[in-house]
Amino acid sequence: MDKKGRRYEVVFSGSGGQGIILGAVVLAEACGIHDGKYVCQTQSYGPESRGGFSRADVVISDRPIDYPMATEPDLLLAMNQTSCDRYHPELKADGLLVVDASLVSQIPAGRTVAIPFTEIAREQFGTEMVANMVSLGAVVQLTRLVSPSKLRAALTARAPQHTADLNRAALNAGIRAAKKIDVACLENLGAPEEEDV
Amino acid sequence: MDKKGRRYEVVFSGSGGQGIILGAVVLAEACGIHDGKYVCQTQSYGPESRGGFSRADVVISDRPIDYPMATEPDLLLAMNQTSCDRYHPELKADGLLVVDASLVSQIPAGRTVAIPFTEIAREQFGTEMVANMVSLGAVVQLTRLVSPSKLRAALTARAPQHTADLNRAALNAGIRAAKKIDVACLENLGAPEEEDV
Repeated sequence: MDKKGRRYEVVFSGSGGQGIILGAVVLAEACGIHDGKYVCQTQSYGPESRGGFSRADVVISDRPIDYPMATEPDLLLAMNQTSCDRYHPELKADGLLVVDASLVSQIPAGRTVAIPFTEIAREQFGTEMVANMVSLGAVVQLTRLVSPSKLRAALTARAPQHTADLNRAALNAGIRAAKKIDVACLENLGAPEEEDV
Repeated sequence: MDKKGRRYEVVFSGSGGQGIILGAVVLAEACGIHDGKYVCQTQSYGPESRGGFSRADVVISDRPIDYPMATEPDLLLAMNQTSCDRYHPELKADGLLVVDASLVSQIPAGRTVAIPFTEIAREQFGTEMVANMVSLGAVVQLTRLVSPSKLRAALTARAPQHTADLNRAALNAGIRAAKKIDVACLENLGAPEEEDV
């Protein structure tokens, strides 16, 4: 279910305190450093950043990347309602929306996976701070963009040492939660049609 | 000495363990979230990433940014010799090269500031891990891209709580080190000529 030879765009979005950028950096390094792909990872800030919104793009390809930002995301992770409302219109026609069901109640129609990342983080680990790692685990399980072992290696190299065990456990909780999703109803996932160039 | 109305490109470069990306993210958030500028911050990974090289771009502007990566850097921070050799040719004609004098011995001719960031980190703080913050403080002091107080605010929001005091002290050490630089010999710095559009 690899996305060989094509450009795959992921947008992580949420609020400033949710660790959106760390999630994006870990995915980028898992794919770029540990899996040898071409990856661009970008944050943009503008006047709206002062409102506490956070967005991070990851573009992954087997070939050198021309434009480094997501223009038509294959996957949007929305960790709050505002991000979901704001970025969902950009999603590709057959793109996948992954929302934090703890914080997003109004979910647009379409190919959507809703998992309560924040609730899982709080209930299983006693802190909402690892909701970003729970969601990252789920994103990787759903898309098979990179192997869980390479994802864990990237996380270990990037996150502070004293949080390594907690972060790894959160990642695994996200992987488990995503395994329960009925992927039969997400038929395009992992087997994208060839695009015209 | 503000860079009002123009695009300013900074490239942070070094090896994987030097905290290059954190430095770039903190500068981006100081300018973007705390100072209301338009900022794009990008990491790219390719086959060479497996060699342990790390590069992070920050593009800062008062206007919306078209292309998010640095194409002709105004400032290159090189935290090791390989990065210096590799990225120096991209530097703008009147651009500023800032090198870690602890690790870069062959310094290209031109507008260059050499400060022993790693040595300062080790000698003053007992750990080389904060060399990235020492260098970030120096970059901001040399360029006046953002005020030290906004830089500190961004650092506090981004870096792990338990390292906040250490990181802030390292930032200040970099600011102090850069204040000793004779800026008279860096005449273009902070007062860029108007560019043709």
